[in-house]
Amino acid sequence: MPVALATTMRRSVVLRRRPVGEPGPEDFEILESLVPPPGPGEVVTRTIWLSIDPYMRGRLWDRASYAAPVQIGEAMTGETVGEVVASADPAFTPGDIVLGARGWQTHCLSPAASLVKLERDAAPLQAFLGVLGMPGTTAYSGMTDIGQVKPGETVVISAASGAVGSVAGQLAKRAGARVVGIAGGPDKCLWVQETLRFDDCVDHRVPHLPQALEAACPKGIDVYFENVGGAVQQAVFPLLNPFARVVMCGMIAQYNDAAPPPGPNLGSVVGKRIRIEGLIVTDKPERAAEWRRVASPWVKEGSLHYRETVVDGLENAPMALQMVLRGGNFGKMLVRIGPDRG
Amino acid sequence: MPVALATTMRRSVVLRRRPVGEPGPEDFEILESLVPPPGPGEVVTRTIWLSIDPYMRGRLWDRASYAAPVQIGEAMTGETVGEVVASADPAFTPGDIVLGARGWQTHCLSPAASLVKLERDAAPLQAFLGVLGMPGTTAYSGMTDIGQVKPGETVVISAASGAVGSVAGQLAKRAGARVVGIAGGPDKCLWVQETLRFDDCVDHRVPHLPQALEAACPKGIDVYFENVGGAVQQAVFPLLNPFARVVMCGMIAQYNDAAPPPGPNLGSVVGKRIRIEGLIVTDKPERAAEWRRVASPWVKEGSLHYRETVVDGLENAPMALQMVLRGGNFGKMLVRIGPDRG
Repeated sequence: MPVALATTMRRSVVLRRRPVGEPGPEDFEILESLVPPPGPGEVVTRTIWLSIDPYMRGRLWDRASYAAPVQIGEAMTGETVGEVVASADPAFTPGDIVLGARGWQTHCLSPAASLVKLERDAAPLQAFLGVLGMPGTTAYSGMTDIGQVKPGETVVISAASGAVGSVAGQLAKRAGARVVGIAGGPDKCLWVQETLRFDDCVDHRVPHLPQALEAACPKGIDVYFENVGGAVQQAVFPLLNPFARVVMCGMIAQYNDAAPPPGPNLGSVVGKRIRIEGLIVTDKPERAAEWRRVASPWVKEGSLHYRETVVDGLENAPMALQMVLRGGNFGKMLVRIGPDRG
Repeated sequence: MPVALATTMRRSVVLRRRPVGEPGPEDFEILESLVPPPGPGEVVTRTIWLSIDPYMRGRLWDRASYAAPVQIGEAMTGETVGEVVASADPAFTPGDIVLGARGWQTHCLSPAASLVKLERDAAPLQAFLGVLGMPGTTAYSGMTDIGQVKPGETVVISAASGAVGSVAGQLAKRAGARVVGIAGGPDKCLWVQETLRFDDCVDHRVPHLPQALEAACPKGIDVYFENVGGAVQQAVFPLLNPFARVVMCGMIAQYNDAAPPPGPNLGSVVGKRIRIEGLIVTDKPERAAEWRRVASPWVKEGSLHYRETVVDGLENAPMALQMVLRGGNFGKMLVRIGPDRG
């Protein structure tokens, strides 16, 4: 039933200009606008949590990709958890907690069909943007569809303390692999080894990364879960074993580059029958609910670990994106947009 | 039944030293030795045809690969068609024509189990080393297991007039694809278009290869069958479509390089969900007989085209390898070792 509601003011972070190199707060601006009341089949939500993810850098380029770029003057896209404040759809009532892609803004008018209702007590709400959300699903899809880890194999995960990498590595441990992380700095490496229980973790800032990685992978690498590219990728490729699988999930090290650097020579791909495959999580939308079912009990019992970096306030979302692209976050990057009144 | 036979003298081309850069006749020498009479389960053959293939360059490096390197003083490996001259195995009798990997030599003592008996009239004998042999099977495996061409897709084949590329492209045409070859020089390009009936063929020696290739592939590239690497690979990668498959069969352009050049940046592999996969034909040995069954009628009826470059005499095998690595051959490279007395 439509709910009578005064029109709501919302604040949105919109793209002011296309950044050259690293994006910063000056590339965005905050606009205020009225949220119209919901028409039939529509819902108005108030955002509680906004997810900040590396892929967002790709939306800032004016070029075709698997998703359309954000236009100048348009609100940034992004996954959120929010609360229904007005509904003209029988499936939702005010107070419902919902997951959706409603962008960098305090409120949003959405088609009801684009929202997923969440159980409030299944997990901390923001977990549905990280370990149980898009990043967790990405790790699950990548390991299930491409990595196909077998017991005893060596699996290397770059950005190992990140929202995707931390789940990918824990899944590989559950599959019986020897898991080696790559992360930036001693704090992240320590957490990856001590909390996530990876068998080893290499700091990519060490002076001789190829040698350090080789020492950590005495039997070579059977599966590589790629999140970063650049020097890390160059160090990994020579260590790949025959029949290795490379899950190409992201290459954050080059997201700010207008002209990407050369890649590894692919000659060994032939002789070693390596398989390299790109992954976009939304290609298999059914994986999202499947992963929530699989992983929610693990989160509840505390056997699937994750970590968050939280900044407060919509106006800090651009800074949060900058932080992610610099590797300044530790675990899932989140912006708290409004209180959880539930 | 063992056949009483005087011991036979054979000539072998053995590796004299490991070539740096391009291999030449000076890196090999010819040795004479006695072929012992066959023991139980063994067969002595006289070589008629020797196949020369790009992979042989890989055997000259002193480094681990999918196959062991040839040692200094050892006869070069290679596929041959020959005639049985003595047999101590009930499955073979003198005069039988057999296919096997018996190296760069005039005669060989082999376990009977390593030989495949050929029907003398099924096709010209040397076809079992090319269009019906290992190269043809490679093309068939690559297209079947990795390429998976769908009607209307654009398929690009490098080294398009070669033993592998010519078959790969004709298979893609049979699958209903638009097929674009890449070859070296106008004669090869003409043959690829007029005889093989590819839709287009780009000469990789033109000044602006990326632009020429883009013009030949207005809808991008869905399947790339990679035989050469280098500048051709760099031109292909930016044109790959979402969900493209890259059959990594060989990279002849770099086989003489001690330090291979950088490869293409792999960033687009993520967003385009590209799959890149290496292929070694011997991984699925059952494909060889399967392909002979599939393709023999096509060769007989003249609907599967191929071309050969033949040099005469075992002593010219090193030069034939040099020719292949320079792209100086046109189609399948063969050495006629001895007469076909059949």
